[in-house]
This record gives sequence, C-alpha cells and structure tokens, in this order.
Amino acid sequence: MLYFVNDYAEGAHERILDRLKETNLESTSGYGTDPYCASAARKIRESCGCPSADVYFLTGGTQTNQLVIDTMLASYEGVVTADTGHINGHEAGAIEFCGHKVLGLPHKEGKLPADALQRYMEDHYADENHSHMVFPGMAYISHPTEYGTLYTRQELADLSAVCREWKIPLYLDGARLGYGLACPESDVELSDIARYCDAFYIGGTKVGALCGEALVFTKENTPRQFVTLIKQHGALLAKGRLLGIQFDVLFTDGLYLENGRHALEMAELLRRAFEEKGYPFYLRTPTNQIFIVLENAQMEELRKRVDFSFWERLDDRHTVVRFVTSWATKESAVRELIAIL
Amino acid sequence: MLYFVNDYAEGAHERILDRLKETNLESTSGYGTDPYCASAARKIRESCGCPSADVYFLTGGTQTNQLVIDTMLASYEGVVTADTGHINGHEAGAIEFCGHKVLGLPHKEGKLPADALQRYMEDHYADENHSHMVFPGMAYISHPTEYGTLYTRQELADLSAVCREWKIPLYLDGARLGYGLACPESDVELSDIARYCDAFYIGGTKVGALCGEALVFTKENTPRQFVTLIKQHGALLAKGRLLGIQFDVLFTDGLYLENGRHALEMAELLRRAFEEKGYPFYLRTPTNQIFIVLENAQMEELRKRVDFSFWERLDDRHTVVRFVTSWATKESAVRELIAIL
Amino acid sequence: MLYFVNDYAEGAHERILDRLKETNLESTSGYGTDPYCASAARKIRESCGCPSADVYFLTGGTQTNQLVIDTMLASYEGVVTADTGHINGHEAGAIEFCGHKVLGLPHKEGKLPADALQRYMEDHYADENHSHMVFPGMAYISHPTEYGTLYTRQELADLSAVCREWKIPLYLDGARLGYGLACPESDVELSDIARYCDAFYIGGTKVGALCGEALVFTKENTPRQFVTLIKQHGALLAKGRLLGIQFDVLFTDGLYLENGRHALEMAELLRRAFEEKGYPFYLRTPTNQIFIVLENAQMEELRKRVDFSFWERLDDRHTVVRFVTSWATKESAVRELIAIL
Amino acid sequence: MLYFVNDYAEGAHERILDRLKETNLESTSGYGTDPYCASAARKIRESCGCPSADVYFLTGGTQTNQLVIDTMLASYEGVVTADTGHINGHEAGAIEFCGHKVLGLPHKEGKLPADALQRYMEDHYADENHSHMVFPGMAYISHPTEYGTLYTRQELADLSAVCREWKIPLYLDGARLGYGLACPESDVELSDIARYCDAFYIGGTKVGALCGEALVFTKENTPRQFVTLIKQHGALLAKGRLLGIQFDVLFTDGLYLENGRHALEMAELLRRAFEEKGYPFYLRTPTNQIFIVLENAQMEELRKRVDFSFWERLDDRHTVVRFVTSWATKESAVRELIAIL
Repeated sequence: MLYFVNDYAEGAHERILDRLKETNLESTSGYGTDPYCASAARKIRESCGCPSADVYFLTGGTQTNQLVIDTMLASYEGVVTADTGHINGHEAGAIEFCGHKVLGLPHKEGKLPADALQRYMEDHYADENHSHMVFPGMAYISHPTEYGTLYTRQELADLSAVCREWKIPLYLDGARLGYGLACPESDVELSDIARYCDAFYIGGTKVGALCGEALVFTKENTPRQFVTLIKQHGALLAKGRLLGIQFDVLFTDGLYLENGRHALEMAELLRRAFEEKGYPFYLRTPTNQIFIVLENAQMEELRKRVDFSFWERLDDRHTVVRFVTSWATKESAVRELIAIL
Repeated sequence: MLYFVNDYAEGAHERILDRLKETNLESTSGYGTDPYCASAARKIRESCGCPSADVYFLTGGTQTNQLVIDTMLASYEGVVTADTGHINGHEAGAIEFCGHKVLGLPHKEGKLPADALQRYMEDHYADENHSHMVFPGMAYISHPTEYGTLYTRQELADLSAVCREWKIPLYLDGARLGYGLACPESDVELSDIARYCDAFYIGGTKVGALCGEALVFTKENTPRQFVTLIKQHGALLAKGRLLGIQFDVLFTDGLYLENGRHALEMAELLRRAFEEKGYPFYLRTPTNQIFIVLENAQMEELRKRVDFSFWERLDDRHTVVRFVTSWATKESAVRELIAIL
Repeated sequence: MLYFVNDYAEGAHERILDRLKETNLESTSGYGTDPYCASAARKIRESCGCPSADVYFLTGGTQTNQLVIDTMLASYEGVVTADTGHINGHEAGAIEFCGHKVLGLPHKEGKLPADALQRYMEDHYADENHSHMVFPGMAYISHPTEYGTLYTRQELADLSAVCREWKIPLYLDGARLGYGLACPESDVELSDIARYCDAFYIGGTKVGALCGEALVFTKENTPRQFVTLIKQHGALLAKGRLLGIQFDVLFTDGLYLENGRHALEMAELLRRAFEEKGYPFYLRTPTNQIFIVLENAQMEELRKRVDFSFWERLDDRHTVVRFVTSWATKESAVRELIAIL
Repeated sequence: MLYFVNDYAEGAHERILDRLKETNLESTSGYGTDPYCASAARKIRESCGCPSADVYFLTGGTQTNQLVIDTMLASYEGVVTADTGHINGHEAGAIEFCGHKVLGLPHKEGKLPADALQRYMEDHYADENHSHMVFPGMAYISHPTEYGTLYTRQELADLSAVCREWKIPLYLDGARLGYGLACPESDVELSDIARYCDAFYIGGTKVGALCGEALVFTKENTPRQFVTLIKQHGALLAKGRLLGIQFDVLFTDGLYLENGRHALEMAELLRRAFEEKGYPFYLRTPTNQIFIVLENAQMEELRKRVDFSFWERLDDRHTVVRFVTSWATKESAVRELIAIL
C-alpha cells in the first residue's frame, strides 16, 4: 500500500536515531537543562540570526500552541486567527480549555490578511461596549498554513506592523515550517520569521523527528517562570535530552532544510503528474500538501492501492482529497503512484 | 563524576533503541492507532490479568496525573492524597490548573492510610455544610511512594474497600512502578494493582524508556471521548508509535521487571554499604531511592565526586540527601561510590 | 433627558420593594433554602406546567449562562449558537473562561435555524477527524434574540427535535423573556418553552427586578451537586431570599407578564410613530427593542435630548441605533420622544 | 424560635430599603457606572484615607475572593492562607476552579502568623526544585478570621512587611469587617487596613446589606481591564446601582460602624451570660461569633428553642457550637436566650 496520508507516519531521520544511540548512556540532568538542549538552542538562535532568542523544546504542536497562547495572553484576551487556523478547528478546544476565545476572521487561501486584522482591531476598540467583549490579544498564523500555502515576506512584515501598532504579539505555528523554508518560491527565511514574529515554533514531529517542537521567543518576551508554566500545563519532559538531541541533529549540517527540500521535490514530481494527467486541483499550493478533486468513484478505486486523506466533500459527486509527501517519502513510491494515476 | 541523582538521567534500554531503528521506516497511522500501540496494550492487559482494560500511552507523569484526575473527577470534586503526594507538592499546580483541589491527609511513611481516608469521607458527608466544600472524589496514591516506600497487598485492598464503599475511584501513580514490582519484599503484583485500582499508570520514563507512561483503566471506566480529552489537554502525541514501540519492548521477555530488578540490586549493594559504614538512614525504603542523613560538611565533601539529590534540611548541621539507582546504573559506579564513602 | 437606552436602568417594580420591606426582619436560612425561594419556585413550576422542574435563582445573565453551559456540557463539548448569540460576542469570554468553545453558526434574524443545527451535527459526526474537534454538546438560543426577534412554537419544536435526535440539550436564555411572552404576535408560552427546552432562565433583571434570573431545569436533568457548582462558580448568594422574594412577587397576579406587556405597548406606540414619520427600520422586531437607521447628523441632533443606544455603523453616513422600552417606561416619556422625532 | 445562626438571616438595614425606594425610578447607566456607585466609592476612599483607591462592588464574598485571587495572581502562583481560611475549606473549591492552589499554613487562633509566612517564602525559594512547585504569590487573611479573632495593627504591619519583602500582595477578606472595626479591643482602623493591605473588601452582606461587597485596591494596582475580568467571571451586575446605593447608605453617617457596634454589644451581653452561667468557651473571641462547648444532650435540649450553628464535634459527648449576633439582633431576643440558658 502506498502511503501519502501525512508527514508523520514514519519514525525519524536515521541521523537522529544514530545520535540517540551514541549518547544513550551519558547521564544528563533533566527537564531541558542538559547540554544537548543547550547546543540545539544555540544552533537555532544562530539559524534565526537572533542571539537573544529563548528556545524551549516541547513534544507536540497542540501542546505548544496551547502553552504559548495561554501564557502570552492576559486572561481577558483571545487569539485572532484565520477561521481555517488549526487552533480553531482541529485542536479539540485546547485553547478554550485554558480559558481563551479563538477569534476567527475570514481566511484568504488559509492566510490571515493584515488588513482584516487591522480592521478587526479598529472595530474592537471603536465599540462602546468593547469592555464586555474578548480583547484581541495575539495574532496566530501558521506557515505553511492549513492549506499548505505560504506567507510572503511582505505579508509577514505587514502583519507584524499591525501587531506592533496594537501592541499584540504575532505568533507563528511552524508545525510544517521545514516545508515552508525549503520552498524555492518562498522569500521567507528563518531570520525573517524571527524578525517579524514575537514567538514561533519550529516543527520537528512532521519534519523528521520522533517528536518535538522548538519554541522560540524572539523579543526577550518569554513569559515569567516559563519552566513552571510548562510543568503546570503537563508539558515538561523529564528526559528533555530526547528533544534536545533531535533538534541538535536537525540543525546540524542543514538537515532540517534538507528534510524539507526532499519532501518538496517529491511533491513537485507528483504535482506535475497530476497536472499532466489533467486532475483538477482544489487549490494550488507550493509545499508538501497537494489538494486534488476526485470523482467519488475514482476516489474509491484509487483508495484500494493508495492511502491518502479525505479533505472535504465538494459536491455530491466530487471529493477533495489530499496527498502529502514528507522527508521520508521514497521517490520509488511517488513513481509507483504516478503510474497508477 | 558519579551519578546517583535520579532514574531518568540516561536514554533508554538499548533494546528499545534497536526496535525504534528496526521499525523506523514503516508507515503507520498516527495518534496511537498504530499496531505497536495495539501490541503493547495487549501485552499490558495480559500482564495485568485484565483482558478488558483500556490502555493509553502518554509522554510524562505530570501529564498523566493531570489528565486522569481531571477527567475522572466531576467539576465539584477534588482528589485525596497523602500530603506528601507528588501531585500535592511537585507538579507546579497542574491539578489545580484543571480546576481541582488536592486534599492532603497526613501521610504515614509517604502512604495514604485507609483508615484516614475512611474518616475523611465520613467527616465530609457528616458535615452539615459539606455542599459548600470540595467533595472528595478520588483517592490518589503512588507505588512506590514519594519516599520510596511500598503499599502491601492488604493496604491496597483496604484502600480499595474504602473507595468502593464511597464510590470513588482509586488511582495509582506508578511513575516508578517497575521498582516496586521488582522488590522482593513486596507482595504486590501488577494483577493486584489492576484488581484494586480503578486506574493506574505504568511508568516508562523512569524505568528505561526515552519517555512514556502507560495509562490503564481497569473497570470499563474510561472517561467518554478520551482521545478528544487527551488532545484537549495538549497530550496527544502525533507519532503515538514512539510510545507503543517502547512499551511493546518493555513488556516483551520481562524487560520492564528486569529493569526494575537491576536497579534494586544496585540499591541493595549501596544500602548495605551505607549500613556497614554507619551512615544514618532518614527512612528505610525497599526500593531504588536511599535517604541518608549527612553532616553538612560531609555532604559538601562528597558532592565534589558524586552527584546526588538534596532532599531537605534536617537541622542546622544535617541534611537529608537521596541516592537513586536505576535500570542504567553500572555496578562499577556503585562500587566506586562505596569506595568513596 | 429622555431615556431609551436599555431595560435595566431603573430599580424594581414597586411591589417588589414593598415586599422586601414587609419581610425585611424575618430571619430565614441562607443560600436559597428559605421559604420565599420555595414559594417562587412553586409558582414558576406552575406557570411552566412542569411540576417536576428544578428552579434555582441567580443574580445575573452572564453568570447564569456561564454556569448552565459549563455544568451541562462535558469537558470535550462546546455550545452551538447563532453567531450573533449573546454568549458569542458580549460576555467577555465567560463561556471560554470555563473551558468551552462557542460554536457560532450563521444566524437568521438573530435566530439559530433548526436545519443549520441539523447539518452541523451531521457534518461533525461524519468528519473522520471529529475526535480532534470540539463536540457540539448543547444548542443555545435566546428568546427574544439579540435582535429582539422571537422564535415561533414550530421553530422551537424543530430545534428541540434536532437536539433530541442528537441527544444534546436545548438551552434558552430568557434575559428578556417577559418581553417575548407578552408579545401578542407570538404563539410561544412558558409551557412551550418548558416542554421544548431542557433548561432555560426567566430573566428578572431586565423585566422589573433589582437583579435576578430564575433558572429552570425541566427534564429532571439538574447537574449533580448543583448547589456546590453554583458556589464554586462564585454565584451562590448568601441571602438567597433577595432573589426568592422578587420572583415570588413577579409570579404573583401575573406581574411578570404585566411588566412585559407594558413595555410592548410603549414600544408599539413608538414604533408606529417612527413608521408614520418615515424613519427607516433596520430590522422589524415585535418586542421592546426598536432598531432605526439614522443619518449621522440627525443622530447627533437627537442625542442632545434623548439617550438611546448606538448599535452599529451602517455606512459612512448612516448609523443603526436602538430604542428600548421597559416595564418602567412612562407613556409621557414616549409621547415626549415622539414629539421630538 | 430564637435565631443566632448567622449574620445574614435578615434583609437589610431599613435606611437601605428606604433609599432604594427613593431612588427607584431614576434612570441610571449600568454596570457600576452610575452616580451611586461613584458616591459610595468616594465615601469609602475617604473612610480609608486612601484618595487613590479603586473601588468595585460585587455581590458576594466567594465571588470577590475568587475574582481578586485569580486576577492578582500569575498563572503559576497560589495563595497562602491559614489552613482554617475560608478559601481553603468552605468555598467549594472556587479558588482552584480558577486554576490556583491554596497553600495552607498552620493557623494560630485562625490567624496567619507573619513569621510562618516568612519561613514559607524562604523555604520556597531555597528549594532547588521550586520551579516545579506552585509559587506563593499572595497572602490571604480575613479580619475577623473564621474564628472571629482579630489581627492587631502590629500583626498587620508585620504581615505587610513580609509581603513587601517578597513582593507579593496582602489581601484581606472583610466579609465581617464591620464587626472587626467596631470592636473596642481592636486597634485596627479602616485606614490601617488600607495602608497595610494591597487589596481588601468591605463586607456588606453580613453587615446589613441585602447583598454586596466593596472591593478596594489601595496601591494603584487594579488588574488591567478589571471590568472585563469581572464580566468574564460572571460577576458583573447589570444594575450596579443596587450595590452602589447600599454602600452609599452604609457609609453615610457611620451606619456601617453602627451596625457593627450593635452586633458587638449584643454579643457582649450574651458572652457575659455564658460566662456567668459557667458555660465553657471553646475559644475567646472579641467579635460577633461566640463559640461554646455544650454537652450533646444539653445541645439537643437547647436546639428546641434556639437556632444556632453546629461548629464541630469536640469529643464523643461534647460539641462546639456557635452563636452569632448581627446588626439585626434584637436585645429582647438576647435576653430571652439568656433566660433559657
């Protein structure tokens, strides 16, 4: 069975496993105070061009979003997002669980437009009753977005400008960041993200780690007693080294970007095949997620030989499906899939 | 530097790393629905002698405690524990973060006595104003306890009887369960725990896994929509296989108990040396934690060559310190330490 | 200055003040266990035609919504509402504060259409990933709605049928219920509400009480230990009699409906004047809120002599404003306003 | 039946009812923005000798404690209290409901000793693992305490000094403050409380109001967006005037203290009678609560003619009971009770 369902179906890049083995019997202190976390943080700060950044390692994306949003917001604040944002629909209410409203604005190809944010902020403060409403206290974006689309550097700059005007942080969810950074069409680098965002995370789970996300605070704005807050949220890993070692490897010799690039090459191969064979695209995306419209019968037929994701029903006869490549996708599998199409 | 600070200082048992490597490139579904989680759950159910048990895998102990306590309690209920219980002092308020009071009763060698629990339940319901008070809705114990002591089978049976009388669940935190189960002085087996407890977790992190705890519901009492609740608490791991594979290995060929036994043998060696050399024990414990009273000067001297834990100040001149062995402790290190004492 | 801003600008109906005075020095037990609460509850049960209903008295609307929604929902559930619902925009995130997502569906004149609810429920459970999403666990409506519109009996029946099919409660926010029940165009009586809804509250604050809302559970479905839950939410009034006495008076000799009727007569007078003088209506509503479109200059002029509410900007030159009548509105004030128009 | 159960069994001082009647039909703006709230706040600021104080009006004590503690603490902080503190035992977990641990220290006659607080703070920060523990972020006291005892001015000064050293606020729960301020043995005045405490509330419910507590922030330290926070906690009263008018009356012509004094005179009468008749006191208290030890048979006998509170079982044959006087206690009732004793 060919597998194109998602980018977290395999274990980890072999260099990670090797390094875990090499370091296995060293005794290190716990909770992220070990030398591997320190080394990984140093490399990430360098890659970001942000020497004063604070870096923390967490195990998953929902956990990271929940923690950042809860600890950067005041109690009376909510988080503004494109209505398609992951935190709005697919995190089981993890944000609300911590007491904060998710304020969804209409998306544009999965993105939160800066002008829509600006208007929302103006309207909120212009409303005579705004003290009876949730204050917009943060802007949340993801890059790539839920639809695999990417912000341009200018779009990030514009969002950042709005956030600074209203003194709210801009937070970027980088669950698939490697697949955004490696995109040849994108002009956004890690240093741009560090410059424009107040906090963001570099996704490991979907880009070749067993688990793990690297959370970066870029503006000397780490919430006070952050380690205690991590623990209080149930998110402090005893053997923090497990995360530190993985990110240390991912940020050595450009492995993180290499993982990203490989997935994008595989996606490009597949995308071109879909085009050539005339499959209609639901949305054009430059990263590792491909959204195709299939007739329902065609979909059922294809399902017998390939695993892919149901995305949404388009109409009675058509369905939007998603094919995802990853750091682990083999070219042979892509070619096999193409042969089937 | 010799290392006796804790039991989570190294990576994982090598069989775990080997298995992660072997299975690395298999594509599996996410969020704990993979075959390794299924296999590990099966083995755990067998080890517990509880074919109907529900098993879930989580990444850490605080997370597990927080999730179980929050989801098994009603909103108006708190959790009863020995005042020394981990949840009462050392989890950064993770239980209260989810809205529940921790009701501490005076401990007896780290344990919650059944008769104290019984009295507390009676007093609560006898109080005319008890509807203005937090309802005791669960009993929490750990085995081994925070002090490394163990419940006897009879003590578990007694606690269980009290809990059933009052219709509240008995929950056992098994962060170091392997070091309890392997103890030759103990008459408590995994099947006893499954019989007497309504929920418990088998600690992986401290007994040879990279990370991970196996949560077991024994009475067809899993909270409804538990996967959603895990996700909502930020605790659902995308690559659930990382946990499944580890527990599958730990419950193959008795590795979990083997890890426990090794640590206890190392602890016994060390314990005897402390005895022979006349070091005063703060508390006699049968597991892998040894509590010794040192003169402060002696402590400072020893610290130059050995890493151990500060436990608490005893008086102006003496300190209680803790030496911990683990699945990874080398006999040579113990002998080196003994030579120094 | 004429006052048409809202319906909670004066104290209480004089019969309430008189009764408070008459009973003032009686010693009664606290927390809602007094005879006045019991009497008021009895009268409300009778008015509802629901002898088994449970009745509780609370001090305000946000408090009541927060408490009901939090205690009737499971942790993994959210509440479905028309996107214009009060809980979605104007309660400062009180629902999310307790951990629950507000799931807004497009409104129809302020109402939640039954077919939209049905579709939402179907879509939720049809989604393969619905366990990663907030479960829709309750339908929230208000009557009158935020726009002063009313559900028909058939609409309530339809909503109720959808809720029963999916086994979720239907909850009605009756902050202005008196102004709905007294409406001659409406075919909805209190007994209909009791039949179709699983819980609802009868608003006192806006219908002639100093403060207070009567919460009714109609299906022997009061959340367990509800008094404790009220206290835990900070909502248990020591002198519960203050609420009991007020509702006892409101439900004696039809005062509650009488208050409603008076406001509607005053509104009708005013509505006809607006019509005759050719003011454009933003929305036609049958209750005590009148939404008028004013030119901005005209609005500023009128503001010098009358207090009314800004509702929203319509375009650069026009504004939607709201005039509200109440149980306390004097006919002479309405006639004065009409003379000014 | 004679009534000595508590101090919230009657309505309100008649001057309050009269003023409610006089002002009843005035139209005022909502949510505490009316002139009566402004006037009451002004008078309270004057009484406190604290012209910069911020004053808010809430409906009940649990609500006020919950709101203040939750909004003044950081997420990682808990509140330190004497273990007998009201928030620790009798508020149904309202503090933990908002996510904060209550850290109970051994009480001394119901009071929190300054040296115990100092030691707790030192120990917390001296602990190597304190970042895994709840931070002590506020000291909570009540005056009178749960046992009716009073702090001296020096004790308040000492507590305040400890709090300032550790930069945590001192918060005083004044549910029965009137009965403390009116005590001739006490050297604590309202201005002392305002000087030494960072926040406190003046209890209305138990000192002659229908409901209501006046919350005072004394150090320009009101939490940001406090009105929104009140609303979010479900505690914002629409007709804020109900609270404003009551406190305006209570702080006119010294009524608040007058109410306190009357209750204390009645208590003194009763206390002397108990003494003369040789009833053993459980605890000597200078305010309006009298704790007496009764033989169980004697208690049952007395219960037939007098309502008083069960406090706690002393031993198999004796019970501690509580007699409470209030602003509304009639001297004739006290004399009747004395005749029975």
